[in-house]
Amino acid sequence: MSTSPEAPRSYAESLRLFARASRVIPGGIYGHTSPALTVPGKFPNFATHAEGGRYWDADGNEFLDFMCGYGPIVLGYNHPEVEAAAEKQRRDGDCFNHPTEATVLLAERLAALTGLGWAVFGKNGSDMTTWAVQVAREFTGRKKILRVRGGYHGSHAWCSPGHGGIIPEDREHVHVFQWNDPDTLRDLLARHRGQVAALIASPYHHPAFGDSALPAPGFWATVEELCRRDGVLLICDDVRAGFRLHLGGSHQHFEFAPDLVCFSKALGNGHAISAAVGKAELKVAASRVFLTGSFWQGAVAMRAALATLEILERDDCISRMQRIGERFTAGLRAGAEKHGLRVNCSGPPAIPFMSFAADTGWQRQRDFCAEMARRGVFLHPHHNWFLCAAHTEADIDGALAAADAAFALVAAGEK
Amino acid sequence: MSTSPEAPRSYAESLRLFARASRVIPGGIYGHTSPALTVPGKFPNFATHAEGGRYWDADGNEFLDFMCGYGPIVLGYNHPEVEAAAEKQRRDGDCFNHPTEATVLLAERLAALTGLGWAVFGKNGSDMTTWAVQVAREFTGRKKILRVRGGYHGSHAWCSPGHGGIIPEDREHVHVFQWNDPDTLRDLLARHRGQVAALIASPYHHPAFGDSALPAPGFWATVEELCRRDGVLLICDDVRAGFRLHLGGSHQHFEFAPDLVCFSKALGNGHAISAAVGKAELKVAASRVFLTGSFWQGAVAMRAALATLEILERDDCISRMQRIGERFTAGLRAGAEKHGLRVNCSGPPAIPFMSFAADTGWQRQRDFCAEMARRGVFLHPHHNWFLCAAHTEADIDGALAAADAAFALVAAGEK
Repeated sequence: MSTSPEAPRSYAESLRLFARASRVIPGGIYGHTSPALTVPGKFPNFATHAEGGRYWDADGNEFLDFMCGYGPIVLGYNHPEVEAAAEKQRRDGDCFNHPTEATVLLAERLAALTGLGWAVFGKNGSDMTTWAVQVAREFTGRKKILRVRGGYHGSHAWCSPGHGGIIPEDREHVHVFQWNDPDTLRDLLARHRGQVAALIASPYHHPAFGDSALPAPGFWATVEELCRRDGVLLICDDVRAGFRLHLGGSHQHFEFAPDLVCFSKALGNGHAISAAVGKAELKVAASRVFLTGSFWQGAVAMRAALATLEILERDDCISRMQRIGERFTAGLRAGAEKHGLRVNCSGPPAIPFMSFAADTGWQRQRDFCAEMARRGVFLHPHHNWFLCAAHTEADIDGALAAADAAFALVAAGEK
Repeated sequence: MSTSPEAPRSYAESLRLFARASRVIPGGIYGHTSPALTVPGKFPNFATHAEGGRYWDADGNEFLDFMCGYGPIVLGYNHPEVEAAAEKQRRDGDCFNHPTEATVLLAERLAALTGLGWAVFGKNGSDMTTWAVQVAREFTGRKKILRVRGGYHGSHAWCSPGHGGIIPEDREHVHVFQWNDPDTLRDLLARHRGQVAALIASPYHHPAFGDSALPAPGFWATVEELCRRDGVLLICDDVRAGFRLHLGGSHQHFEFAPDLVCFSKALGNGHAISAAVGKAELKVAASRVFLTGSFWQGAVAMRAALATLEILERDDCISRMQRIGERFTAGLRAGAEKHGLRVNCSGPPAIPFMSFAADTGWQRQRDFCAEMARRGVFLHPHHNWFLCAAHTEADIDGALAAADAAFALVAAGEK
């Protein structure tokens, strides 16, 4: 890897592909991989290949990757054991007229790991968050859903961060409260007493364009108590954080007891899979909520998920990501301080984020991340980052060396 | 393959796995692969492997497969060229921080094949039908959606065939008309003049628990004319039929001009992918409708789709499936007639279906399909069937020999 600032990085091929894409794709690149909000011409837009904790873009630039495909890559790209398990199944087939034993094995494994009773599977996180909301409506016979302002639960109309094509009816019974502010939750519950089916939240708050916020002491206990009191089901959306904080779901890391938990991203180390896991008493209601998709019984992703869970456990990857993340975060704090910059490091160490204090318009952040990209380290300016088990201490130290240079330039620009 | 009725087929392992599944999965097996409506103990419930036009179940029973994974398998299971293209990409990686060139290539290919302007991609058919509806709402500024009674457009709340967990608001602006009955459409349009964003329909009608119905002469022309007159966008849901009737979308087979077309199933020959393709004038509105999923830029499925489209075209697979399907349908008609049974053969030859006349409760149909399964031919009692390009004339003749025996038993049972 070149982390030398002298090495010029061209993004010419990324820009050429983006121009081609723009002709045949609305917006050119849509969704979370959209380059619209990064620094034009200073970030890669198209990837070609990846290995471990690194990837290469369409111009041949190499990056130490702290986004990990926006989360799915938890063991490293192309993990040999996961890919071997997937390949073994692939030779037999993937998409059949029926499920395979892998579906049963994975449901048994997730039920055991989470301490809940059963599991179902889809392809997108959204498939599961939306279905979990429907299960709660079916179980309670109520309509209202409470969620955290700025939380993300997927692309479905009831929760999408977008406005285009959304009609008021899509969100008529969805109400928001403030993370770490139980009073705003109490207000909502009082206003809609007896009408609330579920509260959905991620295990900690990870908004886009904002610092992450861990649960305040007692917050989850209060949320749980308020939900139980009113017969409101608690849905933990662990799509983003799942399998980086605790093998059995982030609710065990933060010590609370949801009724339903949704997983996706890291579950299959990059293979498309999502899961909802629920308490035994919801099983009958769950069986009444329609759930299907053409590829949802795909056996390859199930085998990849079984292998991923096994390796995460065997190699104690979650502890490793925490240690590496702490090294990264501590180094960033120290680096910023050395250059007289004030930064906020937030989120759990394995899913870190750093922003500059008082950085109106995120300009310093974008400049910093662009300088990091120039030095071969990929960080997102306004979406939390992800570590994986393939990152090494040397990777972190290399990233911190790049950060030292990037901080210096940001500091110089402020003078 | 054993097509001998003497060969006993055990489903003991399927039943054992189903019992295990039922402990940790609501309903045991959910969705379209659910065994709930077939003959208990007379059909396989779990698959192990597949090749070409055949698959094997958990008990080692071999089946000539006329469901093709409920549609995705259009070239045959484990197609060597598709899998080679997928494998080549897989070695480089699948899920990245960015799209790859494959996304651009596939969008270019689908735009060209369909004669429309652009494409986007997801993982489920539902991802695309729902998004297309939102694009229509964004483009028109209207709320209402018209759909065909008994049509299937996926598992999202606005269109799901289920009722559990659905609230009235989910479908408040969704209205149904009758397939092949323009008067019921005219009524709806008159009642909601100026409020209808889109009409969504499959290119022909393929209800569950019913015969398929091709468009009556002039039906699509009338639908198009009525839509144009009122500024209603026409969405063709080609998820199920796509790439079995015309390489560029079934609208070209039936000669009508939708504004948006949704694909999935056969697009990647079993790899999880879906696409929406739209007219150029909708591109700006489309770019305003939020669209994303963790795995939606997955390059392996894109490469599989590019290979699938190439092979479908090169080997003229669509003509082949039509010929094979005609042989199958003609043989079934003749076989039924020989045994004095009245059957309805419906649907396009490549996506055939057969039912017994006046078969209240589908009992004869279930018995027939169970007898076919006993002879190693997998047909679904009340969901349309699918052919693939790997089926041979000999396969069809073998299936017809089994059908002769099954018809004889059904006829004997009626006496």
